[in-house]
Amino acid sequence: MQYKILNSVLYPSDIKKLDIASLPELCEELRDYIITCTAENPGHLGASLGTIELTVALHYVFDAPTDKMVWDVGHQAYCHKIITGRKELFHTNRCYKGISGFPNRFESEYDAFGTGHSSTSISAVLGMAVAAKLQGDNSRNHIAIIGDGAIGGGEAFEAMNHAGETNANMLIVLNDNKIAIDKNVGAMSKYLLHITASASYNRFKNRLWNLFSLKKNTSNRFTRFFSKIGNNLKGFILRGSNLFQSLGFRYFGPVDGHDVIQLVKIFRKLKDIQGPNLLHIITIKGKGLTLAEHNQTKYHAPGKFDPDTGELLPSSADANAPDRYQDVFGNAILELAEKDKRVVGITPAMAQGCSLTIMRDKFPDRVFDVGIAEQHAVTFSAGLAAQGMVPFCNIYSSFLQRAYDQIVHDVALQKLPVIFCIDRAGIVGEDGATHQGAFDLAFLRTIPNIVIAAPMNEIILRNMMFTAYNERTLPFAIRYPRGRGVLPKNSTPEFEILPIGKGRILKEGEKVAFISIGHIGNTVENAISELAEKHGINAAHIDAQFLKPLDEALIIETAKKYETLVTVEDGTELGGLYSAVAELLEREQLKNRLLHIAIPDEFVPHGSPAELYKELGMDTEGIVKKVLKI
Amino acid sequence: MQYKILNSVLYPSDIKKLDIASLPELCEELRDYIITCTAENPGHLGASLGTIELTVALHYVFDAPTDKMVWDVGHQAYCHKIITGRKELFHTNRCYKGISGFPNRFESEYDAFGTGHSSTSISAVLGMAVAAKLQGDNSRNHIAIIGDGAIGGGEAFEAMNHAGETNANMLIVLNDNKIAIDKNVGAMSKYLLHITASASYNRFKNRLWNLFSLKKNTSNRFTRFFSKIGNNLKGFILRGSNLFQSLGFRYFGPVDGHDVIQLVKIFRKLKDIQGPNLLHIITIKGKGLTLAEHNQTKYHAPGKFDPDTGELLPSSADANAPDRYQDVFGNAILELAEKDKRVVGITPAMAQGCSLTIMRDKFPDRVFDVGIAEQHAVTFSAGLAAQGMVPFCNIYSSFLQRAYDQIVHDVALQKLPVIFCIDRAGIVGEDGATHQGAFDLAFLRTIPNIVIAAPMNEIILRNMMFTAYNERTLPFAIRYPRGRGVLPKNSTPEFEILPIGKGRILKEGEKVAFISIGHIGNTVENAISELAEKHGINAAHIDAQFLKPLDEALIIETAKKYETLVTVEDGTELGGLYSAVAELLEREQLKNRLLHIAIPDEFVPHGSPAELYKELGMDTEGIVKKVLKI
Repeated sequence: MQYKILNSVLYPSDIKKLDIASLPELCEELRDYIITCTAENPGHLGASLGTIELTVALHYVFDAPTDKMVWDVGHQAYCHKIITGRKELFHTNRCYKGISGFPNRFESEYDAFGTGHSSTSISAVLGMAVAAKLQGDNSRNHIAIIGDGAIGGGEAFEAMNHAGETNANMLIVLNDNKIAIDKNVGAMSKYLLHITASASYNRFKNRLWNLFSLKKNTSNRFTRFFSKIGNNLKGFILRGSNLFQSLGFRYFGPVDGHDVIQLVKIFRKLKDIQGPNLLHIITIKGKGLTLAEHNQTKYHAPGKFDPDTGELLPSSADANAPDRYQDVFGNAILELAEKDKRVVGITPAMAQGCSLTIMRDKFPDRVFDVGIAEQHAVTFSAGLAAQGMVPFCNIYSSFLQRAYDQIVHDVALQKLPVIFCIDRAGIVGEDGATHQGAFDLAFLRTIPNIVIAAPMNEIILRNMMFTAYNERTLPFAIRYPRGRGVLPKNSTPEFEILPIGKGRILKEGEKVAFISIGHIGNTVENAISELAEKHGINAAHIDAQFLKPLDEALIIETAKKYETLVTVEDGTELGGLYSAVAELLEREQLKNRLLHIAIPDEFVPHGSPAELYKELGMDTEGIVKKVLKI
Repeated sequence: MQYKILNSVLYPSDIKKLDIASLPELCEELRDYIITCTAENPGHLGASLGTIELTVALHYVFDAPTDKMVWDVGHQAYCHKIITGRKELFHTNRCYKGISGFPNRFESEYDAFGTGHSSTSISAVLGMAVAAKLQGDNSRNHIAIIGDGAIGGGEAFEAMNHAGETNANMLIVLNDNKIAIDKNVGAMSKYLLHITASASYNRFKNRLWNLFSLKKNTSNRFTRFFSKIGNNLKGFILRGSNLFQSLGFRYFGPVDGHDVIQLVKIFRKLKDIQGPNLLHIITIKGKGLTLAEHNQTKYHAPGKFDPDTGELLPSSADANAPDRYQDVFGNAILELAEKDKRVVGITPAMAQGCSLTIMRDKFPDRVFDVGIAEQHAVTFSAGLAAQGMVPFCNIYSSFLQRAYDQIVHDVALQKLPVIFCIDRAGIVGEDGATHQGAFDLAFLRTIPNIVIAAPMNEIILRNMMFTAYNERTLPFAIRYPRGRGVLPKNSTPEFEILPIGKGRILKEGEKVAFISIGHIGNTVENAISELAEKHGINAAHIDAQFLKPLDEALIIETAKKYETLVTVEDGTELGGLYSAVAELLEREQLKNRLLHIAIPDEFVPHGSPAELYKELGMDTEGIVKKVLKI
């Protein structure tokens, strides 16, 4: 692609050479470049279109990598990646062996801190800023760029509460686009809107920016002015901004986050103001692509689209493809909610992604999107359960890591019957290392009093939900992957109660028996067919269904019948099904050979799930090979 | 003990019969009762002395157990326990088989929600309030009582952010005593002080309370008044109170939390105001015991003392008893900090408990008490490490559960060399189920790229810290128990670097070999002596030292030499050392008999560590018995 300015931009130093007047054009070229690339190679479109002017202004004014920029959540950082040496690699974004869709310290020195999960940036930047202070470096700048969704996460508040009492040299850029993935929720969100809309505040702000008019070099006067008025005058006039000022920050804004020239001027001033500062900018998610601006949730990560019109390209999936587990969950909870008004749904900002929207459309009062707040989501669910409600709390596996303590302390210890539906379990693919659902089986198994189940297909997911619904004496976790199941579309027979802690014998065989848990059991079925057809090996197959309580009787019986057992799970090899079976065999003095197929003890980067499972030896071929080796 | 009023009080219904004028006397009797009992049977004295008037007023006005009260952290709830049917059991507080030192749903229907870890109460109460709304019950009241330290925890913010946009019928009582265990830190804390000290605010407040003077039944006018002025007028006049109002709460206060009659009057008014309300009360930790008021950290949980004077009784420990691991940590980090100015210490509100105060006294600028904010503590440490500092992050085992995701996502994934010193690992005793350090070995082992070590004595703790300090290519976790080691006092030879992932052969033997990790190895040594002396069994002993990487070569060699292996660890039996050894034996096709001694897969209640280890079969006798069985 040919671009007048962008063609000569590889690094921030190239941008710094440009005249400020040409920055708007550079932004438009970057916008075109991101749209063109992302249309073909899908990614997080909306957030990154919203931060182009911000990114250009930051790199124009600050000196990365000496100055540190931490992009919260990280999928707003495409423009940052493109102008920090990765333009030519951007077409490999999120692809197997390509660049990561998130900032990554191992990928570039410009990525000061890896992100992916929300609300970590202020803590990280504060650590860096305090380090600079201790190292006697007062000139380095430390910038956290965080969305209005992410700033509602508890860790961000903890960090602001700490930062506000230091005099660390840091700047928070609050990128306020009124939306995370779904429409933003929470009082903070309303509060930001209130600031933005406040007429008296805006009058003051305009007067302020005009007075110190940013037209000439007024940085000394400007700095003095702010030091002088301190929080007092601003606190009085901008009473709306007190939340951040209460926490010890100097608050600036709100300003238009798409006016790159104004942003440059503001950053030049802010650079000289020591201590914790917060700049509130208003941006539009999907800026510059009309359809994306108007359908922000859909265009958060839209898949392939027409780069000119923005029209989404038809999904290549067969119309008769199996249902997505997400929709099976959404329809099943709706069905239960229709039968029983105690059923409620809770999710921390993932209503769309987990299909809880299916229930919300019908019962908006009984679905709670609590914002990016995993800890609260779990304890809130516990509170609901304590008063006789039946909470289904849906959280992605990698984000449930945030609530490990709440599951232990608020749910399991009190035996409160919260039903956890853990989406995105196993390898999730393109989002990479921060998002893989590798640890839930292992970390949940350490917790007493909890049932852990994983369905091998859509009907079993439904039945596990129904079983959990009927049981309600213990917390109950059901984990399943992103994407489609294996059964014919709309396989929705009547609910059935499953016996808790019982596995299924899917197939008898000779000498070798697979013991799998969850959806990966389908890959095992394929491997068994191949072993039979091509290699004359007749392997048995057990679907454990429950990791806890484990069907010990069935596994002991299996161990007595078959020489070799092979555990298969799409979770880490340390602490999950493999560990449970190894412990059992030891305890029972059973001398079988035990193999295991699991995610190895390392972080798995990005790529398609198929590519990654292949690399890990967890696809059909890998499983066959492992068995043939012995 | 004979008390004029308290003698006839068993349940809240007894208090409700009293004339309001007699409540101050009841409070004094309760204070005397708590002091008298706690002098003899130690517990959390300070916090509970501060909440007596609050507790009496709440139970006088509200109707527990129908109305729900959730006591954040929970150790402020002694008075609540005493007046809800547990007066006669209070002398068993925190004792083995006695009542719990924390609210516990299984102990009393008056304990609406169990607590122990901080900052959960608002989430739980919101869940209950939302349940009431869905159940069509508008009369039930839901009250979270939370300290000014706990309200700075991220989960509390997440919950307020959610609550503020509901119209759930809930009241937060912010019990502001300016101290958690240590002096409170954080911008929020300064902010609360600012409100309290603000003269203009206090003038307004006094006028308000006088106008609607609480002298006659003005509840309707009062309610109407507040509905009318809403947040607008208050927000304008009380600009200091905007933080909570920004989040959608109606803010009331601050008021004297030791004026029981005024509190009763206020609660009667607040009862009628629907939606999320917050009452800010000022209390004095240790109220009524002069020495406790003046030494709040020392009297947080002071041990035995003279009930008349408050003088602490001399500790019964031998003057030559071994050092506490806490002090070994504190002195070792000081020693490293003196050598290298990159060394910094971080703790979430546990500076005193973990003895980081030893370093803080000398290097106040390099020790960071970040408040009750475990998530932030870990990511902040990661930020420091990213800029070349050497952070030692000290967190108690059970609280580290809060930061599992941050260890995964911010530290291990980025291979940042944060050194975790995990205090209170294993059974901690009287604090009970919420505080036992049972899970850290297991949940940490699931994480790639992390070294996990546990010292068997004080010198090894020092050397592990030194080894971590020298290594700095990976995160490094060192876990150790509360209390004293085993070596002569002041055993501080020169630091030595330990080979990472290497165990030690402590003793060769025949047929049976123990493999232990950490301090419990000393119990194993005792058991081995007893087996030899009384039973003629000559057992070998390996100190694994590292759970990850595990010394596989040594364990394989041991397995080849001894028929029976016995793993011993003071952590859960699921996922820790036992699992690691079981997996290894399976992988290596080694057919040893494997026994394990570990905390079983259940929550362990309160009692002394000795009593609990005995009950769990993890004391010398238990270990001997287990081996004799085979």
